[in-house]
Amino acid sequence: MLQKSLALNSSLPQAKYLQLATVRPDGRPANRTVVFRGFLYDTDHLTIVTDRRSCKVSELAANPHVEVCWYFPSSREQYRLSGSMAIVSKDDSNQQLLQARQEAWARMSDAGRSQFVWPQPGQPRMPADEDLFLQPAPDSAGSAAPDFCLGVVQVTEVDHVDLYTNQRRIFSSQLAAVVAAGTPSNGDAPSQPALRWETRNVNP
Amino acid sequence: MLQKSLALNSSLPQAKYLQLATVRPDGRPANRTVVFRGFLYDTDHLTIVTDRRSCKVSELAANPHVEVCWYFPSSREQYRLSGSMAIVSKDDSNQQLLQARQEAWARMSDAGRSQFVWPQPGQPRMPADEDLFLQPAPDSAGSAAPDFCLGVVQVTEVDHVDLYTNQRRIFSSQLAAVVAAGTPSNGDAPSQPALRWETRNVNP
Repeated sequence: MLQKSLALNSSLPQAKYLQLATVRPDGRPANRTVVFRGFLYDTDHLTIVTDRRSCKVSELAANPHVEVCWYFPSSREQYRLSGSMAIVSKDDSNQQLLQARQEAWARMSDAGRSQFVWPQPGQPRMPADEDLFLQPAPDSAGSAAPDFCLGVVQVTEVDHVDLYTNQRRIFSSQLAAVVAAGTPSNGDAPSQPALRWETRNVNP
Repeated sequence: MLQKSLALNSSLPQAKYLQLATVRPDGRPANRTVVFRGFLYDTDHLTIVTDRRSCKVSELAANPHVEVCWYFPSSREQYRLSGSMAIVSKDDSNQQLLQARQEAWARMSDAGRSQFVWPQPGQPRMPADEDLFLQPAPDSAGSAAPDFCLGVVQVTEVDHVDLYTNQRRIFSSQLAAVVAAGTPSNGDAPSQPALRWETRNVNP
């Protein structure tokens, strides 16, 4: 369904922008726009990229639950994707996830890669640091910047509404909830079990 | 700033769509698209409309904190608006807020008003209920539907980033945090104190 929605909205660059909600340690919600970076290999986990120094990384360490809100303007569809998010940093023990991280780095634009060597996001902007924002971009063929992370959203519930037809469906998977608890401790990539999604038609 | 951003993006209907994050009673985040319905009178509180039967109303009763993520595609700006949200329902004791609710009802389209007399959102869709989705819209000049609510977002912090210039600023107000605790108990409309917003330039 998401691949179809992406195709229907491919003329809009912002159709790949989604809003990621997390919960702050003090119990308040946080919400920001992130860019969809594709599915993880042949799974249906969504990937994004993030800076290890960003607030969302520390928020997720305390509460891994997320809800993605993804609105497609051309097809007038909204997906609410609920689940948890894992952060793959340079120290991850899983070789396949590390490879996915490196591949995501290589696919980034120069402007996108540059941000990961800028001064710490959210800290006061200092005149003495201005030159750091003008550095040449790190090489796409080199190792990913130390603070570059891949975020993997493991979805356990989908709430989809089509505003043209006013059809709304909720898809949920108990099995996915188990998978979301973590990657296997033996270091293998997370396998994609045959998820059985339960579908319900609900009132919009 | 928001009025300027709205003007810069006025060719895009979806520029009035924003994503509202709340926290569910079980501690997981929730996130959905809502439509900006203007500022509350001459205040800088944002208004939206919502159905009293929707999950967000019960979520807000337990935790009034929200974060709005508002992305403007044409000007490539993101606002993260953090604060709390009050729900104005038909039983509100504040006459000015009740009037704002009724005026919001009158400004809705026929399609928008119809939704408030549909069967309960999120409940299983029943074939026997299909006729209810085909009812004529309630009159814009009549009283607002009983489940129609105005949501008022009282913003205490703004995180604004301009992706063209990579300038990011955070505006925060301690005074607004006090106002957000509730409307005056004497039934007057919430007054708009002279907010002193502290501005910080931070790293994007």
